[in-house]
Amino acid sequence: MTTVRAYAAREPKGKLEPFAYELGPLDPEGVEIEVEYCGICHSDLSMLNNDWGMTEYPFVPGHEVVGRVAAIGSRVTTLQVGQRVGLGWFSQSCRTCEWCISGEQNLCASAEGTIVGRHGGFADRVRAHRDWVFPLPEGLDPETSGPLFCGGITVFNPIVQCGVKASDRVGIIGIGGLGHMAIQFFRAWGCDVTAFSSSADKEAEAREMGANHFVNSRDPEAIAAVANSYDLILSTVNVDLDWAAYIDALRPKGRLHLVGAVLNPLSIPVFPLLVGQKSISSSPVGNPHSIAQMLDIAARHAVNPIVEIFPLEQVNEAIAKLEKGQPRYRLVLKC
Amino acid sequence: MTTVRAYAAREPKGKLEPFAYELGPLDPEGVEIEVEYCGICHSDLSMLNNDWGMTEYPFVPGHEVVGRVAAIGSRVTTLQVGQRVGLGWFSQSCRTCEWCISGEQNLCASAEGTIVGRHGGFADRVRAHRDWVFPLPEGLDPETSGPLFCGGITVFNPIVQCGVKASDRVGIIGIGGLGHMAIQFFRAWGCDVTAFSSSADKEAEAREMGANHFVNSRDPEAIAAVANSYDLILSTVNVDLDWAAYIDALRPKGRLHLVGAVLNPLSIPVFPLLVGQKSISSSPVGNPHSIAQMLDIAARHAVNPIVEIFPLEQVNEAIAKLEKGQPRYRLVLKC
Repeated sequence: MTTVRAYAAREPKGKLEPFAYELGPLDPEGVEIEVEYCGICHSDLSMLNNDWGMTEYPFVPGHEVVGRVAAIGSRVTTLQVGQRVGLGWFSQSCRTCEWCISGEQNLCASAEGTIVGRHGGFADRVRAHRDWVFPLPEGLDPETSGPLFCGGITVFNPIVQCGVKASDRVGIIGIGGLGHMAIQFFRAWGCDVTAFSSSADKEAEAREMGANHFVNSRDPEAIAAVANSYDLILSTVNVDLDWAAYIDALRPKGRLHLVGAVLNPLSIPVFPLLVGQKSISSSPVGNPHSIAQMLDIAARHAVNPIVEIFPLEQVNEAIAKLEKGQPRYRLVLKC
Repeated sequence: MTTVRAYAAREPKGKLEPFAYELGPLDPEGVEIEVEYCGICHSDLSMLNNDWGMTEYPFVPGHEVVGRVAAIGSRVTTLQVGQRVGLGWFSQSCRTCEWCISGEQNLCASAEGTIVGRHGGFADRVRAHRDWVFPLPEGLDPETSGPLFCGGITVFNPIVQCGVKASDRVGIIGIGGLGHMAIQFFRAWGCDVTAFSSSADKEAEAREMGANHFVNSRDPEAIAAVANSYDLILSTVNVDLDWAAYIDALRPKGRLHLVGAVLNPLSIPVFPLLVGQKSISSSPVGNPHSIAQMLDIAARHAVNPIVEIFPLEQVNEAIAKLEKGQPRYRLVLKC
């Protein structure tokens, strides 16, 4: 029996407190990770608060794990003990449904979230199925790479799923935890990247990350001035925007793709979609193959999440900072 | 000089009355068509009523033309006088912009509608640029084929643009002027087709057209029962529906595609789009190559618009029938 030392909340919006639990025998296809670092994702906060009504307490957040393989099950041949790996939103999928067998395990209806009905990575150990544990490539810094495993793949996945090409002109709405990685990935992909931000003071940083252009999203005239400009606009925010204005900013056949879980329904005018053959879409984190591709791209193109590190014992201070929208740009716990 | 004998309205919602106008010299790339038949499309009605604010009066509707080539310009080499042809929504495009040179002339910002700023096909003659005049294949009945050139390509275009495959499960919302052609085209394409209609009495006809399944769209429980079923749902209606229910009816990666020009903004919940990687899109009529493909498919698979014929002199009676939503399924004028 292994005792895991974690931090858990006992109730919605509760403080995280030290919490220990026992692990049973390791599944033959299971991997046990000794956690070194774990990013804090906005969805940890949503789950902590039970915003989506699916949180079980005591609740251990954490699904942007980087660490070393501590143990492997008898049927794990692709990972070795001691190897540095990462783990993200999903920890398990059924491996038999049409989505799993076609390589889109992230769409499996039985896929299990790392923090949904199980304990996550704000801990010294966490377990997952081998399919969802990824070797960290040479050249990626373990301290800063945790956020790639949820936030990173969330913004990289649309590149794969929407068939983005280097010739595309792309707008990124929101230069925060997701957006600052999106700028880097789309720039690495060869695209012309415009950052849309309500914080005019982020322009210099956005350009440093790779943005070719910057638009102040609080200025309706500035948005109107870029009408008919983008093949893809990726929204990383979870607040209501003037979506019709961003649809007008798309070129014909353009797509507005949202990875921010906006709570209110979108209000979408049909006529501009029809005349310009435009679309609105969304996507979750990617499948395992896309995650591996993302890691390769991140290593080869030096895509680096910009992080602030907190010791695990200061997790509540870190969460308070996230709640206030203060991170620039991503928080990571040293576990 | 050629005098065209047409029917025109003098004002929004005006009656159509005999109207003559003169044609000047034929453009070197122009084609003059002796109109035999002209379908009445719902967009003729919208334009007649100036619903879109771009109608010029006197207004001659008609953009679903079938007839014979009466004259060709000096640079027209692909059509012959006497040949039977068709003409749809567009009559001209710029031939130089990025969309024209890449074969997507329907997205050209300067494309000219057959009834926008020019006189349409409720007449004995109409002219268009050679690029938008299509030989009617052997085997297509000139009396019934007019509606293919706007309504037909409107519902066929999504097959091309959305990459529809025979393995797809497709829902068609609305079994009317557009929907009854959509059922036939998607069935010809090899898809499994479900008709959604608020008229339960259309079930037998929908199945005769090729629908494999029928769902009463007035019954929320019937729609809930087909949750997670379709790769594509094509909405052909222009009224407000419970779009969230149809999004739930999509499988992962499914798409809700609207070709009906719904006037009110859609209300679209983001979470189901995100989790299921779904999309909402729309499209106009197709490009010339797609129109030619549609005609080929229609001829090879016996896709037949079901029409009622009116003599041109009874155009006002025909329009009154269209206004009441009575056609089963499409009206055609004999010109």
